[in-house]
Amino acid sequence: MTTPILRRFRFTVAYDGTAYSGWQVQPRSPSVQQTLEETLAGITGHPVKIHGSGRTDQGVHACGQVAHTDLTTRLDATSLLRACNARLPADIRIRSAVLARSDFHARRSATRKEYRYFVWNDAVMPPERRLYAAHVPHPLDVSRMHEAARAFVGKHDFAAFTANPNREVESTVREIFAFTVTARGHAITFRVCGNGFLYKQVRSMVGFLLRVGAGAETPEAVSGLLDARSSRTARVPSAIPQGLFLWRVWYR
Amino acid sequence: MTTPILRRFRFTVAYDGTAYSGWQVQPRSPSVQQTLEETLAGITGHPVKIHGSGRTDQGVHACGQVAHTDLTTRLDATSLLRACNARLPADIRIRSAVLARSDFHARRSATRKEYRYFVWNDAVMPPERRLYAAHVPHPLDVSRMHEAARAFVGKHDFAAFTANPNREVESTVREIFAFTVTARGHAITFRVCGNGFLYKQVRSMVGFLLRVGAGAETPEAVSGLLDARSSRTARVPSAIPQGLFLWRVWYR
Repeated sequence: MTTPILRRFRFTVAYDGTAYSGWQVQPRSPSVQQTLEETLAGITGHPVKIHGSGRTDQGVHACGQVAHTDLTTRLDATSLLRACNARLPADIRIRSAVLARSDFHARRSATRKEYRYFVWNDAVMPPERRLYAAHVPHPLDVSRMHEAARAFVGKHDFAAFTANPNREVESTVREIFAFTVTARGHAITFRVCGNGFLYKQVRSMVGFLLRVGAGAETPEAVSGLLDARSSRTARVPSAIPQGLFLWRVWYR
Repeated sequence: MTTPILRRFRFTVAYDGTAYSGWQVQPRSPSVQQTLEETLAGITGHPVKIHGSGRTDQGVHACGQVAHTDLTTRLDATSLLRACNARLPADIRIRSAVLARSDFHARRSATRKEYRYFVWNDAVMPPERRLYAAHVPHPLDVSRMHEAARAFVGKHDFAAFTANPNREVESTVREIFAFTVTARGHAITFRVCGNGFLYKQVRSMVGFLLRVGAGAETPEAVSGLLDARSSRTARVPSAIPQGLFLWRVWYR
């Protein structure tokens, strides 16, 4: 019988954020992180800390959140995945579990992240989508939003597109590699990929793009706001959390 | 000022069945019908009865349920729709409201109904789909299920594909106009259209097709079960309600 040794595991996690306070442990409401830690503690018999690639807010979902954790267990990664999914509530699923190098870090090793934001653009919101998309009943010009999204691509100061920038301690410069807006029937999908995102950055960018789509702002206004480097104003509202999915995290 | 007169309205209703006991009023838990009746009573100021095209079970959803009701109101159909959607919970939406002839009957006037059933066929169920599709982790042969589905098309005795047939009082003969099974990525969609369906008929047919897809039954077995006209057995399980949507109802 082998002695269990401490090993680092890397998980890809999907969750429906509806019932949680978000990814991170909060004092008075359950979080995805806490639910995973308690499940893993039940399996391994020791206290567990799990580290995500980043936080997601209350109501935000994930398709491909990545997290690492150090566990002392005899289980191989596949058995661990099965044990987790058997114990976890159905709104959190481990999609993959693999052994990781001891220097792998879900947040610090990440090189690229993709978020997707879903909008339902029709008079009436289908009930089964209400927790997984934002409802916009008025007409939206998709090509205009796509044009504006392209203006975000590149290395910019996103001070105008983050809540609580806390600019003294953290740079607000980030790089966006791709940003597209596509429609299929009434469903509009925003796909944005970058080297990292500030607090509420994706929801702020989508919030502004929805104003562009409605005709309240021009696509050209994006560059002006980026260049000004001033703090976020009422011109840049946050799109609701329900439409947002952390889609994928890339590593070297 | 016009005196309000009693008029018949026809509604197309979408709902997420998760939180309800089903369409029909039940003694001890809220139903979609009851929620609509109470909302309309609040708007009109008189007690309201609403008649659906048919019942849906607990957990079953609707994209295009049709219902009629007689209301005494000064509101036109569009204003009535807006007033309803403003008061209804977000998991029930009126998609359209129109005036109907006084002899229109949501159930008796229906000539054709379409149901869709959704399956997610992959090892792990995406959390946001768990209430709107059935999870089948083992491989399914889609073309084999499609072939079996075609055997249901036509006028048959569906006694073997209904729960509680109550054959003394009601015929178990129905006609199916079309039945297809298609896949797109991990999502498998069953579309079935017929002149009417027996209690749990769609879920029984899908339950059997899933056994065909898994290799436990052959496509040829469908005809044998239809011809035998015997009651439902363990060979014909009910697929879970969460995957089922009442999609559309047709009228002359």
